[in-house]
Amino acid sequence: MTEPRKSPAFLFDLDGTLVDSVYQHVVAWREALREAGIDLSVWRIHRRIGMSGGLLVQALLSETGVELSEDEVKQVQSRHAELYAEQIRTIAALPGASALLAHLTRTGVPWIIATSGRSAGARPMLAKLELPDDTPMITRDEVRWAKPDPDLFMSAAQRLGVEPAGAMVVGDSIWDILAARRAGSIGVGLLSGGYGREELERAGAFRVYEDPAAMLGHLHELGVRT
Amino acid sequence: MTEPRKSPAFLFDLDGTLVDSVYQHVVAWREALREAGIDLSVWRIHRRIGMSGGLLVQALLSETGVELSEDEVKQVQSRHAELYAEQIRTIAALPGASALLAHLTRTGVPWIIATSGRSAGARPMLAKLELPDDTPMITRDEVRWAKPDPDLFMSAAQRLGVEPAGAMVVGDSIWDILAARRAGSIGVGLLSGGYGREELERAGAFRVYEDPAAMLGHLHELGVRT
Repeated sequence: MTEPRKSPAFLFDLDGTLVDSVYQHVVAWREALREAGIDLSVWRIHRRIGMSGGLLVQALLSETGVELSEDEVKQVQSRHAELYAEQIRTIAALPGASALLAHLTRTGVPWIIATSGRSAGARPMLAKLELPDDTPMITRDEVRWAKPDPDLFMSAAQRLGVEPAGAMVVGDSIWDILAARRAGSIGVGLLSGGYGREELERAGAFRVYEDPAAMLGHLHELGVRT
Repeated sequence: MTEPRKSPAFLFDLDGTLVDSVYQHVVAWREALREAGIDLSVWRIHRRIGMSGGLLVQALLSETGVELSEDEVKQVQSRHAELYAEQIRTIAALPGASALLAHLTRTGVPWIIATSGRSAGARPMLAKLELPDDTPMITRDEVRWAKPDPDLFMSAAQRLGVEPAGAMVVGDSIWDILAARRAGSIGVGLLSGGYGREELERAGAFRVYEDPAAMLGHLHELGVRT
């Protein structure tokens, strides 16, 4: 008796990985922080996208030496959510994202979305990806700690019924790759969120592709036999 | 008779190096290209900022397979300039930029700005840097080929009366570092334009700092004795 050969499962980050939304997040954070009296260079905000919103604000505060109360931090996060929502119509799926997910579904490879974003911002992305509303997705609302903690990816693997070691995390930021390693999964990087190849490799990504379209063209490199 | 010990001269890129304007350029290019029927992922545009506008459009066209006439390319460039001009009020000097330039001036170290941008977009940045209107600056209008050709930096060195080999180019993009090498100058990278440290190092940057403030704190590493 031999077990059937198993494909890895895929745990996908959302922003910058499946949808081209990183710059809209950057702009929304910059404005929300500015309203709270915190002026920051844009690149510093970009480099924090993908981590939990609370941690992002704390990290940026510690760099600037500014102190905000817990309520003020919540206010910044809620302004970010509002400002981001205003820009949702300008966001498009990344090239190949819909095709990649459709291909995995068609060939029986398990996959799920796991995002540090809240459900309110993440759910509208499903339509852009031509996915049904009940597509499996773990959001920040469902875990105590978002990336770079491993909880999102561990919950996502559990939802699929796979071990984290048998899953690959696909993400655009070093927070995805760090959370993947902490969960015991293999990280795959995409350049479509604006990080450089070397940063993702140095963080520990097993492979780096330009975007979902390029990953779809190289699935055999990830052990997918179809 | 010994010659007085000479400091290196500094040739500064502008966008992403002295002013926090890269994301405004990205957004303006994205919109100008979209109006011409070219939908591109934002990160692909970001990675081209800093090269000449004509080359940027050609490079993006060749990636997408779209063809535009010479007039249409000019139209995209002119729309970019308009859309960028609308956002100029949102642009700020990068941390330490004014202090760094003032320090160099005070200690007699020659410096000049050399930008792939046109004078119309670049001149308004001088006020943001607390610099007089007649600050020495070489813009795209004054050379046949902008970065990554070496012409801008060679003209800049000539304007200062120094040899390119005795000058350091300070820039945020790999186009600056490439143009520096082609000019025979040493490249110094800044992270403030959104590139990663490893990309700039791999392109050949001698040192990489976070932003002008960090460079000011490490001028001794660049051979500046003050």
